[in-house]
Amino acid sequence: MESKLPDVGTSIFSTMTGLANEHGALNLSQGFPEFDTSSQLKHALSAHTLAGYNQYAPSPGLPVLQQEIAALVARRYQQDIDAAAQVTVTAGATEALFVAIQALVRKGDEVIVFDPAYDSYRPAVELAGGRTIHIPLCAPDYAIDWTQVSAAVTQKTRAIIINSPHNPSAKTLKQADLDALKALLNKHDIYLISDEVYEHITFDDAPHLSVLRDSELAARAFVVSSFGKTFHCTGWKMGYCIAPANLTVEFRKIHQFVNFSSFTPAQLALADMLRDAPEHVDELGLFYQQKRDVLVEALATSRFKILPSEGTYFLLLDYSDISDVDDVTFCQQLVEQIGVAAIPLSVFYDKPNGDRIIRLCFAKETETLIAAAEKLCQL
Amino acid sequence: MESKLPDVGTSIFSTMTGLANEHGALNLSQGFPEFDTSSQLKHALSAHTLAGYNQYAPSPGLPVLQQEIAALVARRYQQDIDAAAQVTVTAGATEALFVAIQALVRKGDEVIVFDPAYDSYRPAVELAGGRTIHIPLCAPDYAIDWTQVSAAVTQKTRAIIINSPHNPSAKTLKQADLDALKALLNKHDIYLISDEVYEHITFDDAPHLSVLRDSELAARAFVVSSFGKTFHCTGWKMGYCIAPANLTVEFRKIHQFVNFSSFTPAQLALADMLRDAPEHVDELGLFYQQKRDVLVEALATSRFKILPSEGTYFLLLDYSDISDVDDVTFCQQLVEQIGVAAIPLSVFYDKPNGDRIIRLCFAKETETLIAAAEKLCQL
Ligand SMILES: CSCCC(=O)C(=O)O
Ligand SMILES: CSCCC(=O)C(=O)O
Repeated sequence: MESKLPDVGTSIFSTMTGLANEHGALNLSQGFPEFDTSSQLKHALSAHTLAGYNQYAPSPGLPVLQQEIAALVARRYQQDIDAAAQVTVTAGATEALFVAIQALVRKGDEVIVFDPAYDSYRPAVELAGGRTIHIPLCAPDYAIDWTQVSAAVTQKTRAIIINSPHNPSAKTLKQADLDALKALLNKHDIYLISDEVYEHITFDDAPHLSVLRDSELAARAFVVSSFGKTFHCTGWKMGYCIAPANLTVEFRKIHQFVNFSSFTPAQLALADMLRDAPEHVDELGLFYQQKRDVLVEALATSRFKILPSEGTYFLLLDYSDISDVDDVTFCQQLVEQIGVAAIPLSVFYDKPNGDRIIRLCFAKETETLIAAAEKLCQL
Repeated sequence: MESKLPDVGTSIFSTMTGLANEHGALNLSQGFPEFDTSSQLKHALSAHTLAGYNQYAPSPGLPVLQQEIAALVARRYQQDIDAAAQVTVTAGATEALFVAIQALVRKGDEVIVFDPAYDSYRPAVELAGGRTIHIPLCAPDYAIDWTQVSAAVTQKTRAIIINSPHNPSAKTLKQADLDALKALLNKHDIYLISDEVYEHITFDDAPHLSVLRDSELAARAFVVSSFGKTFHCTGWKMGYCIAPANLTVEFRKIHQFVNFSSFTPAQLALADMLRDAPEHVDELGLFYQQKRDVLVEALATSRFKILPSEGTYFLLLDYSDISDVDDVTFCQQLVEQIGVAAIPLSVFYDKPNGDRIIRLCFAKETETLIAAAEKLCQL
């Protein structure tokens, strides 16, 4: 059978985690926490399944969870959203991104993405019959040149996908970026997909500039978030999409045939957490900032150039003073010879630019971060 | 924003469950068990989450669950499958059907479906750029005329979707059907999607004729199943797809961007159940047969004509001796005036045929079935 996605292989995240396990390496590649989700959340899940909440939730999500999500948005971003009409609970942010793209993109449409870009955007657009237009961003700032974006807009442009805090660069969009984006959306009939799965992981007192804070941007946006990232439970595959009511209608039409509804006991448990433990979300940025600082400090004597991390749980390292090999080969050597698994940055580019940069995930125990840094300092 | 699915509204299942709740009616509409999943399964879920298995599973599924699924196939159908290469765990059968369709269907392709057909087939095909060719089946037998199917095959036919035991007709395919299907697949370059979510719910000692039993059919098939149906946990949204290795490669490429992986603690819990409680699956047919018999017996004095139910947890009732109104109106009246929610059969047809038939779900407590039948006997 010929392939609908001829260019797609096994994801780099699966590949590197597989290699890490095979070589007994410290796995700082795939983005997931080494530590467990909270005891409170696990006990809530357990209580709800034992209490018998094991049948279909409504396709848009349980009202109690929709409401807690709306309350979170009100508390964090001072914005009122309509829980019933705007919030849809999904099987992880991956499903939310996929469905938003299917709802928007028609045959022949173009979607602007910024490289380095998360690996699911492009195949999702291609399955919808569209194509991605890639705007490459450059190390170390990964700043967006909005004049270039403007020039890339054509009659066929249907949407722009932004991601802040950004995986893998760990940069955040600034107010000037959002202003430029708004000017663009005001000029063209374009929609926005805003991947904000790391929304609660920003550092150094910088607030997250959610698209939801700006009613003009929010009026044309699908905003995607992830409970896996926020509550350290990536294996639960729980996320959500917030969009205006008219866009949500279209989103839900597709969601009902992709997944129908999401794990009922987890919806109840997450609603409990949002209600009973708001401090968890509020303290998440600081929690990961400390991890970042541990890793950065432990790498201080290494020969890597450390790029700034403003958010997410990722840190980029430039190894051009250490080796001349390409980043895929370098990561292969790291896992086999040094015992540390990382992600090569080139896999996030449509046209790899020869940068010698790798991504580390610091959602790991302090000892793991220090042990990995010690190994990396030997290079 | 114009709609990618202009013909799709809220699903009839959500609508009827909503109406049932609003009117305090007995809900025999949406297909889900009124009773809970087993204590053993709930405790297994609880144990695995508390033990800390809360991060991403591998995208194809946890090996331990893939292996138990392969063992189930070996035990029930005497077929060896390659767990690692052929089994993919999904977010419910809905995701499995959606992904199989995306993997197969290209722009302009035709997919043959039999009406009455499950509501997700058509939109999934249309989102892939294809179109469904509907072959209507007729009450009370819903038999397939394979000459008609053969005549419907064109150069553009890409796949046939079959569903046995069949929702909503409660009929099962017979060996002659599978033989005719095989002859067709041997003649044309066509794939098969076999929706077998009710595979373990067959009655009166008739074994389920899974496509997996026949290596020629299985060689061109995506076979979809549902843990929700088998273990009374529809709200867990756990299912799987079995396909030949080469088709599975394509399936997984898309699955990784639709859902990536499924709820980790549930995968472990379901693997426990398959290993430790094989009798649950083996006794499921008898369990539901008794419910069918309770409902049929309790309806014996009603004015409904009861159609035979060979499998699934559905029963069709012909109300043409009771009322002349169309089935949507009749269901509306039932829920409002009698206090019983059912599903009108016309919603499963591309071109409704004027049949006056409704579907009842008998995955309910005995008292509920008897109470519902008493109300229906008043008509
Ligand atoms: C879904 S696996 C990838 C996890 C992740 O977000 C990353 O490593 O970038
Ligand atoms: C996913 S809701 C529909 C449940 C079901 O399979 C049915 O009622 O037919």
